[in-house]
Amino acid sequence: MTKKVAVVLSGCGVFDGSEIYEATLTLLRLDQKNAIVQCFAPDMEQMHVINHLTGEVCNEKRNVLVEAARLARGDIKAMHTARAEEFDALIVPGGFGAAKNLSNFAVAGADMVLQKDFLAFARTMHQAKKPIGLICIAPTLSAAICGNTAICTIGNDDETAHAIEKTGAIHQNCPVSEICIDENNLLITTPAYMLANRISEAAEGINKLVDAVLARA
Amino acid sequence: MTKKVAVVLSGCGVFDGSEIYEATLTLLRLDQKNAIVQCFAPDMEQMHVINHLTGEVCNEKRNVLVEAARLARGDIKAMHTARAEEFDALIVPGGFGAAKNLSNFAVAGADMVLQKDFLAFARTMHQAKKPIGLICIAPTLSAAICGNTAICTIGNDDETAHAIEKTGAIHQNCPVSEICIDENNLLITTPAYMLANRISEAAEGINKLVDAVLARA
Repeated sequence: MTKKVAVVLSGCGVFDGSEIYEATLTLLRLDQKNAIVQCFAPDMEQMHVINHLTGEVCNEKRNVLVEAARLARGDIKAMHTARAEEFDALIVPGGFGAAKNLSNFAVAGADMVLQKDFLAFARTMHQAKKPIGLICIAPTLSAAICGNTAICTIGNDDETAHAIEKTGAIHQNCPVSEICIDENNLLITTPAYMLANRISEAAEGINKLVDAVLARA
Repeated sequence: MTKKVAVVLSGCGVFDGSEIYEATLTLLRLDQKNAIVQCFAPDMEQMHVINHLTGEVCNEKRNVLVEAARLARGDIKAMHTARAEEFDALIVPGGFGAAKNLSNFAVAGADMVLQKDFLAFARTMHQAKKPIGLICIAPTLSAAICGNTAICTIGNDDETAHAIEKTGAIHQNCPVSEICIDENNLLITTPAYMLANRISEAAEGINKLVDAVLARA
């Protein structure tokens, strides 16, 4: 049976939005598995705009939904319009947008607040026992979505793993080519560009994550 | 032997830059085949900035190289620094950036002018008998790069095919899953999002294009 999957984006570009390769690889695998995909992003200003050539913050304003639309070839909807009953699964690619726009983890660490429309949707999906896949830095949001029993991975970065444990979730080290499966919470996570040195490495873990999410949807 | 491939980007987003999926799929396949990749883009203002949510032109200025850096996770160089002797092959993904920033085909059609640094590099690669892969709308640049004997495809769009013939190149219809090979000019082309309805279709043709380019490098 065809599965409907919501993919939540957070801009377009690793330093201030969704990591482009992670998002594209997620969409490729979902399409290869014949899933029906709808992308969403919050209609709000980005925390900031980063010049990806120099790494510097720009004196510029961009909207998360408008920039994420680049990653979706225009086929994207505002986060607040997402209805959990219409979807079988949720996947969130990484990139700093997950820690800057979907939450403020990048500045607040374990004391972060999640973007309210995203949090409401993700929690409803979790409560309805629908599988959730979080990629790269997005697993920092695990406890906020799934509660204190969540088990997840961001790879092996001690500082981030410690912050995750402070949120109440349990962190497990995991290589880039693998996934962490929390069967109780139907939560699947993979390190991707928290560890990847090349795009084919990220693809390995992301392909497994998408397959594991679809198998539980 | 490891092949070194120059990938030329033209921004970040289908309507005013490089088509993101085509660029990512190209980089994925190159990496899976163990090619060494360097991305380039011209350091110049974009023809315009399109809001990818609404399709409207924005009153905003963005730089091609700076935006293309999003697609390369920051690992990109200015087009004018590319040296043909350092590379075994060239690949140009599509997106309107190829027709707005690498050339002005989008407004001038067959009377277009190519961006000078890109043209100089591409012509030198061709003259050195190094294979060139052009994706989606980028094959409109075939005659400018390879001369009047170039054979290429953009799929089956009559208007674009006619414009290509006006430039002096020969157009051949081709399905999205296939490639057009001009052995004399070592020119490989594929329709990708000129025809693709889904990302997995674009991936099929792009994987074949990358393999065909590497086989001739």
